[in-house]
Amino acid sequence: MAVSLPFVRIVEIAEPVSVVGSGPDVVTGIASLAEAEAGDLSFLGNAKYKGEVLSSKAGIILLPADYEGNPASGQVFLRVKNPSYTLALICGEIEASLWPRPAAGVHPSAVISPSAVLGQGVHVGPLCVIEDGAVIGDDAVLESRTFIGRQARVGQGCRLKPGVVVSDYCVIGDRVRIQSGAVIGSDGFGYETVQGEHRRVPQVGSVVLEDDVEIGANTTIDRARFSVTRVGKGSKIDNLVQIAHNVSIGRHCIVVGQVGIAGSCVLEDYVVLGGQVGLAGHLRIGRGARIGAQAGVLADVEPGAILLDAPAIPFGLAKKLMVLKMRLPDLFKKVDSLEKQVEALSGNQAPR
Amino acid sequence: MAVSLPFVRIVEIAEPVSVVGSGPDVVTGIASLAEAEAGDLSFLGNAKYKGEVLSSKAGIILLPADYEGNPASGQVFLRVKNPSYTLALICGEIEASLWPRPAAGVHPSAVISPSAVLGQGVHVGPLCVIEDGAVIGDDAVLESRTFIGRQARVGQGCRLKPGVVVSDYCVIGDRVRIQSGAVIGSDGFGYETVQGEHRRVPQVGSVVLEDDVEIGANTTIDRARFSVTRVGKGSKIDNLVQIAHNVSIGRHCIVVGQVGIAGSCVLEDYVVLGGQVGLAGHLRIGRGARIGAQAGVLADVEPGAILLDAPAIPFGLAKKLMVLKMRLPDLFKKVDSLEKQVEALSGNQAPR
Amino acid sequence: MAVSLPFVRIVEIAEPVSVVGSGPDVVTGIASLAEAEAGDLSFLGNAKYKGEVLSSKAGIILLPADYEGNPASGQVFLRVKNPSYTLALICGEIEASLWPRPAAGVHPSAVISPSAVLGQGVHVGPLCVIEDGAVIGDDAVLESRTFIGRQARVGQGCRLKPGVVVSDYCVIGDRVRIQSGAVIGSDGFGYETVQGEHRRVPQVGSVVLEDDVEIGANTTIDRARFSVTRVGKGSKIDNLVQIAHNVSIGRHCIVVGQVGIAGSCVLEDYVVLGGQVGLAGHLRIGRGARIGAQAGVLADVEPGAILLDAPAIPFGLAKKLMVLKMRLPDLFKKVDSLEKQVEALSGNQAPR
Repeated sequence: MAVSLPFVRIVEIAEPVSVVGSGPDVVTGIASLAEAEAGDLSFLGNAKYKGEVLSSKAGIILLPADYEGNPASGQVFLRVKNPSYTLALICGEIEASLWPRPAAGVHPSAVISPSAVLGQGVHVGPLCVIEDGAVIGDDAVLESRTFIGRQARVGQGCRLKPGVVVSDYCVIGDRVRIQSGAVIGSDGFGYETVQGEHRRVPQVGSVVLEDDVEIGANTTIDRARFSVTRVGKGSKIDNLVQIAHNVSIGRHCIVVGQVGIAGSCVLEDYVVLGGQVGLAGHLRIGRGARIGAQAGVLADVEPGAILLDAPAIPFGLAKKLMVLKMRLPDLFKKVDSLEKQVEALSGNQAPR
Repeated sequence: MAVSLPFVRIVEIAEPVSVVGSGPDVVTGIASLAEAEAGDLSFLGNAKYKGEVLSSKAGIILLPADYEGNPASGQVFLRVKNPSYTLALICGEIEASLWPRPAAGVHPSAVISPSAVLGQGVHVGPLCVIEDGAVIGDDAVLESRTFIGRQARVGQGCRLKPGVVVSDYCVIGDRVRIQSGAVIGSDGFGYETVQGEHRRVPQVGSVVLEDDVEIGANTTIDRARFSVTRVGKGSKIDNLVQIAHNVSIGRHCIVVGQVGIAGSCVLEDYVVLGGQVGLAGHLRIGRGARIGAQAGVLADVEPGAILLDAPAIPFGLAKKLMVLKMRLPDLFKKVDSLEKQVEALSGNQAPR
Repeated sequence: MAVSLPFVRIVEIAEPVSVVGSGPDVVTGIASLAEAEAGDLSFLGNAKYKGEVLSSKAGIILLPADYEGNPASGQVFLRVKNPSYTLALICGEIEASLWPRPAAGVHPSAVISPSAVLGQGVHVGPLCVIEDGAVIGDDAVLESRTFIGRQARVGQGCRLKPGVVVSDYCVIGDRVRIQSGAVIGSDGFGYETVQGEHRRVPQVGSVVLEDDVEIGANTTIDRARFSVTRVGKGSKIDNLVQIAHNVSIGRHCIVVGQVGIAGSCVLEDYVVLGGQVGLAGHLRIGRGARIGAQAGVLADVEPGAILLDAPAIPFGLAKKLMVLKMRLPDLFKKVDSLEKQVEALSGNQAPR
């Protein structure tokens, strides 16, 4: 990673409260306090790592304004309001230099239907396929080997990484990012069993990803049985997530890796699903509900609820049951002991 | 989705018991009762939604024969024997119009070995690769960017969606559907540890998918260590499922999304595995057994068994234990109370 | 699978302790004892299957040196030191014949940047894409439709199966094998919520796979927020695994299918994670620790620990709690009974 960011530019971005010491003129990498070397920029983002600052070899360290202590020789401390936020700004500049926007234009190896419509400034990488009637919005970037099906629509400023599949009729909003290998619009999984054979139920709906949605690598989103499977504006879906047909995800939800959402579930806005969570079909998950990793949800969830466990139960109860579970060995012993005492007491009484 | 189905055609398909009212001449969409608009067809497939019929804006509603009530103005009620089944017939017709069979022929951008053999009526989309000695059956459709390895066989009337990988030597039966991104015939995961290093155990078997199998998006099926990994006739596998080497899945099984099946498991016919289920290696799952979502199976399963939980136990027992788990806080209190009472009783007896 | 291995070659490889009987001159397949036919080679790798030897139809059977019993007519028994190991050697030879190394050279349909550098003996299959500044080591094999991003490096003797994505700046060591559909270097999943919107945190790091790593089909490995996401030398990752940004996996680890590892986790060397395990973020898993399938790990793990369950607890405790859980119905009954006895005892005492 050929990072090369002048110190003076970092100061411009960081707007530091104070600059103490003297370090490298150019930053060549970013690393944690423990791993950084002389050319690296590092930061104290979490008070837990405070002890690592003074032993860090980083040439430049972003620190909170109230940090006390002094840099080593050849090292510079920049005190800023919010080191994590400042780091994100600096990384944003590095990202823009490492991943410059590809130039507009269509690679000659791409296969594009004459009836497809490409907006201004669109980039189509090598070996992409765009089928009949598809529409690609202005400034969209389709990296190598992307597939856009018939009549599908991709909005303005989208970025599709190598190998993405957007099936026929699917609709992608503006500024949507889709990581490699994601499949948008696979068939819904629906069968009717007739005389011992599973007959496919036709799946004639599509998928809609609203503006500013992001979809992780190798995630799969099935087309609806009819109508649409929807991911609402600003929601972010991680890698290897399965979203079944007719699911409706609200706005600004977060769905972490390997979650599975069964058919026709409705997530209201601002729902958060932890990694590997599973949702049974046809559930409604209320606004702002948070479901802990690996939980299994079998019933509707109230807005704002925080659930854990499988089947999922309220956070507080789950924690309590977890503690009691660990105390089961004692409980069994205690009951055995009680049994003996009661037997003894009964024996003592018997003569009466 | 440019759906456009004349009302007269719908009546032909539905063979209604009665037609009451007068609605749109052409249906332009299909939607649930709550979401439908004037041009839409809707249906009452589940008595639970009965209350939504009279407030629905759908132009045409499929209803069970015994439904009472009358359509609004501009709305038509079709009473039929089985509204869900009728809807599936209508959707089948829509699907055929939205996804017409691609014309026979090979796209010029496809890369096909001279020693590959293509049957009559085969469609090969843009940028497909078909390697040496592969055989593609009559009327098969290989959509864009499909890969067919050396000596692999794809049966008649198969449909492989964009980006499918069928590795060398794998055998796909007739009428098999494979969704985008599925990998058929990746290496089995087998290692022997020699002097602290994991050495790969050669995986020289293949994968057989029998007739009428369907495979979901981004699902992975490993080639056998030797012999074959098999999915039996008519079985349906959902998205993101992992099927390890030497697994043998019987006929007409249903495997829901994100299931993981470890090496050498045998599923007899008509097994159903719920979402995110995990099976340990070398297990036999008896005919018709049903394993609930997220269960973890560690031992052979009897035919017809219904299991839940991890480790998986019989449904009835799992439900009972779930109820008892929720009563644990009470149990702990009760035992504490008993302890005090017994102590008191012992104290009372002490003088004796 | 056109296996064809002469019996004399098998004897050369196996170096048998004894050869008894007379079987086929050429082996045409490998199968388990129960499934083998006359032309097949089979083996007794596990004493549990001993009873199947005498009824097996296999033409050639590899047996442990101390096996007693005699072959049927037309059947030969080869007694060897370690039948499983001998079988692996034989399968290695079969594998080399079924999957010969592709010839060096670049398929004319591949799209390769003029600034990419290809080593000696490299094979680049049809429709691969290699972008600016990428470097491919000697003797690497890139099968069809592989994508190698800008400035990425692929080491010597690597084998990338059809459809692999190696993103910009990622570094792959020597002799690394990557199965189809794997995505190396997708964006890390990191957001900051500002005024109700999730803003993407730039992800400017990369992924490093060290020498002899193997990666399964459709597995996803995210690039680091900064610095690198790393998989250490000799570690083996199965299919559909999710490895989040900044994870560091040590040397010689085994990660089974569908595991999810959240951001910044550190696995020391020789860690084994069973199928579908989930790790919360920022954990350290000590050297040689083993985590059972489906476990959920929420805290650091000591070296050598063996954990099960979610939340993960020590193996012995988990087993004990499992037994107690099954005895809960009895415990509830016992406590009810005790309650009545104590009540009775109290009643008896009352008059005093």
